[in-house]
Order: sequence, then C-alpha cells, then structure tokens
Amino acid sequence: METENNSNQPRDLSLLFNARSVAVVGASANPEKLGYEILNNLINMGFEGPIYPINPKAEEILGLKAYPSLTAVGKPVDLIGVIVPGKFAPGVIEEAGKVGAKNAVVISGGFREIGNDELEAALVEAARSGGVGIIGPNCQGINYPASKICLSWPLIRRKGGMALISQSGTIAAALGDRADKEEIGIAGLVALGNRCDIDEADLIEYFGADPNTDVIAVYLEGIRDGKKFLEVGKRVGAKKPVLVLKGGRTERGRKAAESHTRSIAGRGEIFDAALRKVGFEKVESIDELYDCAKALAVEPKRPGKRVQVLTSSGGSGIVAVDVLEELGLDVAPLSENSRKRLAEVLPSHCVVGNPLDLTGDTPAERYREAVEALAETEPGIDLYLLIFGDPIPRATENCLELKKKVDRPIIAAYIGGGEVEEAEFPKLNGAGVPTFPTPERVARAARSILTGKK
Amino acid sequence: METENNSNQPRDLSLLFNARSVAVVGASANPEKLGYEILNNLINMGFEGPIYPINPKAEEILGLKAYPSLTAVGKPVDLIGVIVPGKFAPGVIEEAGKVGAKNAVVISGGFREIGNDELEAALVEAARSGGVGIIGPNCQGINYPASKICLSWPLIRRKGGMALISQSGTIAAALGDRADKEEIGIAGLVALGNRCDIDEADLIEYFGADPNTDVIAVYLEGIRDGKKFLEVGKRVGAKKPVLVLKGGRTERGRKAAESHTRSIAGRGEIFDAALRKVGFEKVESIDELYDCAKALAVEPKRPGKRVQVLTSSGGSGIVAVDVLEELGLDVAPLSENSRKRLAEVLPSHCVVGNPLDLTGDTPAERYREAVEALAETEPGIDLYLLIFGDPIPRATENCLELKKKVDRPIIAAYIGGGEVEEAEFPKLNGAGVPTFPTPERVARAARSILTGKK
Repeated sequence: METENNSNQPRDLSLLFNARSVAVVGASANPEKLGYEILNNLINMGFEGPIYPINPKAEEILGLKAYPSLTAVGKPVDLIGVIVPGKFAPGVIEEAGKVGAKNAVVISGGFREIGNDELEAALVEAARSGGVGIIGPNCQGINYPASKICLSWPLIRRKGGMALISQSGTIAAALGDRADKEEIGIAGLVALGNRCDIDEADLIEYFGADPNTDVIAVYLEGIRDGKKFLEVGKRVGAKKPVLVLKGGRTERGRKAAESHTRSIAGRGEIFDAALRKVGFEKVESIDELYDCAKALAVEPKRPGKRVQVLTSSGGSGIVAVDVLEELGLDVAPLSENSRKRLAEVLPSHCVVGNPLDLTGDTPAERYREAVEALAETEPGIDLYLLIFGDPIPRATENCLELKKKVDRPIIAAYIGGGEVEEAEFPKLNGAGVPTFPTPERVARAARSILTGKK
Repeated sequence: METENNSNQPRDLSLLFNARSVAVVGASANPEKLGYEILNNLINMGFEGPIYPINPKAEEILGLKAYPSLTAVGKPVDLIGVIVPGKFAPGVIEEAGKVGAKNAVVISGGFREIGNDELEAALVEAARSGGVGIIGPNCQGINYPASKICLSWPLIRRKGGMALISQSGTIAAALGDRADKEEIGIAGLVALGNRCDIDEADLIEYFGADPNTDVIAVYLEGIRDGKKFLEVGKRVGAKKPVLVLKGGRTERGRKAAESHTRSIAGRGEIFDAALRKVGFEKVESIDELYDCAKALAVEPKRPGKRVQVLTSSGGSGIVAVDVLEELGLDVAPLSENSRKRLAEVLPSHCVVGNPLDLTGDTPAERYREAVEALAETEPGIDLYLLIFGDPIPRATENCLELKKKVDRPIIAAYIGGGEVEEAEFPKLNGAGVPTFPTPERVARAARSILTGKK
C-alpha cells in the first residue's frame, strides 16, 4: 500500500458532487473530440448551474458562450473538467486555484501511466498549492445524477442507488451503462485514473454518507493509503454495503496493474485481510460485482436466510436451489398448511414444494396468487425468488401488485423468454424487482441481500 | 442411476434427425395453441419433405391439407410430433407404429411428472410394441437445422456447431435462442423431458458421430442408464468435447430433481466420477455451459497454454490475466524482439507487454497491426485474446482480415461499447471470433479451447 498522502483525513467532496457551476477546459466544437462529448454530455445531463466552456479559439460552443481562460470567466467556478493535452494540465490547475475552484476532474492522460512522473508531480503541486482537489488524471471522469453532473461518458442520467468507484474507466462505464439500460440507474460513478489526489477512501467516505447511495461497488487494483482506507472503511462498512473486486490477484496480474495506473497492487492476502477488517464484501467477477450491487441498490440488506423459489421451469428451479443451498441459504420445505392452501389455489399439475414448480403453462398471475397465499400461511419466508422461464407477459404488473401487499424482498430471474423477456427484464428492475439472466445469478443476488442469520 | 433400459445399446437415431416426412398430431389452426406454434415453426424452418397436420376437426391448417388420423395419411411418415393431451398419446404412438413411423417427439405432458406413472407405462408399451422411438414425453421437443426440422419453440434456424441436450426445456431453449441471436447457431437441440425411451446416451452417441456437431452441451439431473452412458461416453469423449452441467448437486436440489422429471438424481460424487472416467468436462453454471460450448462451436480444442492479451482497457486486461493464470494458462511476457517490433508499430503511449495495453484511444486497426506483428515475431503464442473495452467500430472487419493471416484462435471480449458493441458483438461471433461480455468469461472460454498442455 502506498502512503503518499499522510493526512489520513478523508477529503470534503461536497462541492465536487454538488458543484454550483462547472467549467470545461478544452471544450471543443468538433464532434470528433472528447472535449465536445464531455461538454455535450454535461449539457444533456441537464446541469442547472452555469456551464463555462473554456477554449481560446472559440466564441461559442454548443450554444454556450466560450471563454479564453478560467480567469476570463470572472465568476465563481466550483468544478472544472480538464480535457486539454496533459502538458497543459498543471497550468490549468494553477489557474483553477487562483479563481477559487474547489475541484477538478482531469480526464487528460500523459502522466505517470506513460512514465511521465514529473508532469504528474507538477499537477499535484499545482493542486496542493491552490487548494484544488483532483480526480484523475488519466481517467474517465465522474457522473452524479442527483446534481445532474456528467463529466464523463457515456451519458447516464438515470438515478439509482448504486455508486461505482473504479480504477478502470471501462469497467465503471460498462457497469454504469448496464445499470442505465436495465432501469437500475446509478447514484454516482467515479473513474479514479491515476488517483494522484482524491482516492478511493475519500470517495467511499462521501458515498457512505450520501443519502442517494444505497450500495458502493468498487473495482480496485491496490489501496492507496492503507491507514485512511481502514479508518474510513470501518465507519462506512458498519452502515452501508461496500462490494470490492480486486484486479491483480495473480503475480502477472499484479505486474500488469503496476503498468496500468502505476499503482502498487497490494498482495492478495493483505488486501483481503483489510476488506474483512472493515466489513467490505469481496466479489470474484465483474458480473458478480454488478449483480450484487444491483440487488442492494433496490433491496436493503436484511437478516434472514429462508428463500422460497417459484418457477415455471423445473430445471432452472433446481439450479437455483443448488446455488442457494451452497451459499448457506435455506430452501426450507413448506408447512402442511401452506401446501394445502397452495393446492386450493393452483392447478393440480403444479408441483407444490420449494421450489414451487408452477410449470410451463403458467401465466404471471399464478406467481402472484401463490405468493399472496404464502404471505398468509408461511411467515418464515425471508425472500421470494421468482424464475420466469418462458415468454411470460405481465410479469411486471403482477409483481407490482405483489409489492404492495408483501413485506419481503421479491427478486427474479428471466430466462428463455425471447422478446417478452427483453421487454419485461428492465421493467421488472424499474418496478423494484431486481432481475437477473440466470438462476445462478439470481441465487447469488439473494445471498447478497440476506445476511444468512436471523 | 436408473437401469430401466437393459439393452445398453445406443439407438439408431438417423431417421429422427433426418426424417423425410413429418406428421404433427394435435396441429391446430388457433394461434393461441402450442399445436399451431409447432406446425408453424416446422413450416417456417423450411422443412423440405411433406408435412402432415393431424386434426380430426380440420380440413386445412396453415395452408396444408389436414388429416383426421395418421392412418388416413396413406403415405410413409418417418417422424411424428405429438401435442395432443397426454391421455391420448399412447393411442397415437400405437397408430404411429402401425403406419411404420420410426420416431415420435411427445411434447404432451401429464405423465410421470404429475405422478401418472400408468399413463407413461402405457406410452412406453405402445412405443416398444410398435418399434417407435420416443423423445419425451413432457418435453420442449427437438430442433435440427441441417434437416430443417423444428418440433420445438422458439424457432431457431441458424446452423452452428453446438448441440444442446437438456433435461430442462427452458435451459435448452434459452441457450439455443442466445446462440441464434449471437450468430453462433446450433447443430441440434433436444429437450429430454421425462426421457421414457431415448436418453442422453443415445443422443450423445448421435451427436458424437454427427459431422455437423463440434461440441455437445448437456444439462442433466441424473444419468438414466449408467452402463450405456459410460460405454457411449468413452467413445464420444475421446473424439469430441462434451460439457455437462449437473442439476441437483445439493440434497434439496436432488429432491427437487426427483419431483421435476421423476428421475433419480445421481449423487454428485458418483456423477463427477462418471464424467471424469469418460473425459467429459463438468461446468458450474448455465453461463459457463454456454460460453464454453460457444467457444468450442467455433474453435476446435487444441494443445497449448500461452495466451496473448490485447486490450484497450487496462483494468479489463488485468482481470483477464488474473483468471487466465488462475486457470493454469500462461500469460507469458513478450520476447525482446517482439517488444522492439511492437514499439515500431504502435504509438508510444501504448504499454507493450502481456497484456498489451493499446489504451483507450485505440481504433480496431491497432489490434490488427499488433497481432500481425506478433504473428511474425512470437510463434509461441497459442491464442490471441482481444478485449474491446470502449465503442470501437470495425472490430469485425479487422478481425476478419486477421483470420486470413493468423493461424491461431482469436477470441474476444466486448465491454463498455454501448451501441457499437451491440452491433459488433454478434458480427464478431458470426465472423469466427467467439466474443464474450466480460474479461472473466472470455478467459474461461480460452481455457476451454486450450488443453493447457503442449
């Protein structure tokens, strides 16, 4: 672990995520340039404060008055996006300090990641002397829908409970984009890049206290400041779920991580021990990071371990049961009373039990009727896991009705549903039923919601 | 393991998959009915032999002359699809025997799966006495694009190298549909249902000898006939990859499997030992079954363990390296010669090594140029793993050019590419570059192609 920053105090990032005005230094009128895309995204995000494009060669960009420099703006600027070539970035930050800007997102590359340590040192020096916090450099930027700030790409506007913090811009962007398309949305997204200044601990602290954030999903290659990470982690880990995927677990992965952001990738065991100490949850893959964050963005963690599976596909139900049991959850049999009640409600060819096999001809209404019955007769159930294993229309509207009546999490898998699935899948997420593409993945998501204890 | 069938000889299924004429018993003119969908799919599949809809109440269905019974057809019928209510199925099979039909796909339910063992026994009796082979009952049918036969749903017409055999209709249909949409296609698909007659060993034998099939992907809850399975398995396992996902690994999963198709789910250890004995590969999830089958449907298994990673996303490259190394593959460093050559070909901000980080601004051409250079300087590479970690257009056309020149498998991940990814992803598959949604999944696919030895 590196310990460049000895302050060990997490930074105050309120004016980063709640900036009242934003300047885009390196804004461009050329749609081929990143400086165009960033400005365009910020505008399309609907940012409500003033936006100042900075470009000495333009009078106006995308309908906004452009300024030759930050100084020329002549009004307070809270946040600055920097897309100029790296060698100009320290000068921009120096000027930012002079005009009183609090933070900058330096998207520009050309620093430590290509061995240009001097340039990065100059950037850090400018930041410190001017009192400007820096995200980056060499990063894919930030997104915070609650304040309608997007200094990043792609444009993600949908608000949700998932905050993404990542040493890989691509992984953050890919997961954010998925969350947007699947009607989950994001609370925030930060690509750390070379993290010369603001680091993962600062961001975990911020999102930990942020009322918009329900779960923090992190991709890290190494911890920047061990002491700060542990201090912040203990605070945040006690009150909000934090999921961490580690890149550089193997010797060769570690070496690659050192070239990537020139950060010292922590040894796996030390990293794991730190996570355990602060109560963060380690995940094993990008899909798992996303799936668990998605579940916890919709459903808070809760005590319990008993899961009732309802399925139209016998095989998928069995696969889900296997994974639930392997993860330490309890696919308990139904009481005699519940079995009787279900036998009254359901057609005789359904297989009453756990899994409850509603069979291939089931309409979505049958799931609702069965859960309604169980909500009365089987109070020990902690979570309902619904598998829609065919093109079953109206899954969403029936789940919405259920959610009004049933005081337990309802999560789903949708598999083998063709075009009906394509329509229902995001709608279910949007309706508060986190939905996954396979029985294994929904079972893992159930485990992330339920603590396994009661 | 059950041993109901003591013959232990795999069945000759050539007239099942190469039927010259097909009758659909229970064909319906009502688009709400399965008997309509099945007939419609068979027609739209483009089956070239005669199709006989059987329905005593119709003169014509979907433009085809309908017959009141199989006997009334008065011409030879090789294959029969059965969608009548279960109680009528034994009579249909009896008649099928009389008219000389060789095989029947009994989609109808209402047999052992709901405790009606007598009806299933009657079905088996009719089949044996008439010499009719049965797929099912209570199944989602079969699909075999080479003969344009689809007695199943959804309609899948695209031919590919992957044969699917499944005790779950939903799992088979979901994977077949994915393979179709992703431009991979299928060699065949069989939902076993209650497998009262033709079983997994018969089908593994058939697809093992089938020149259209490159890989066999199987979902099984239990083995029906242990002796036959081992005999067939040894033969087929020696010449073709067979991947198996087992449902019912846990005690409660096993119980659920027993209700599902009333098959005795084998104990996990015995099952695993059988797979090892015949050289089949066990997989752990539906996604893994699909991913590995997809890789092997395009690229034959080959000796080797050295993988070269090329990426636009540093983080994704690191994640891939971790998984490759954890799976026993070799992400070996490049020779000095190769490093020099790449330094000439690539812009200076690229990070030359393994992974080769082409960085976020890379066009698809840079991947091609790098692989072309490595094909000359680094003959020890066994497989190229390309990660497109941004919206990178023309990935497919550059890979197509590469495939003309490079004598090694090329596989890819596409992540964080938005709409460009949506277009390129299936095209890459169709162009012979199996492509996966995350670095972990493409790494696992690499492991399924390379034996790990040389």
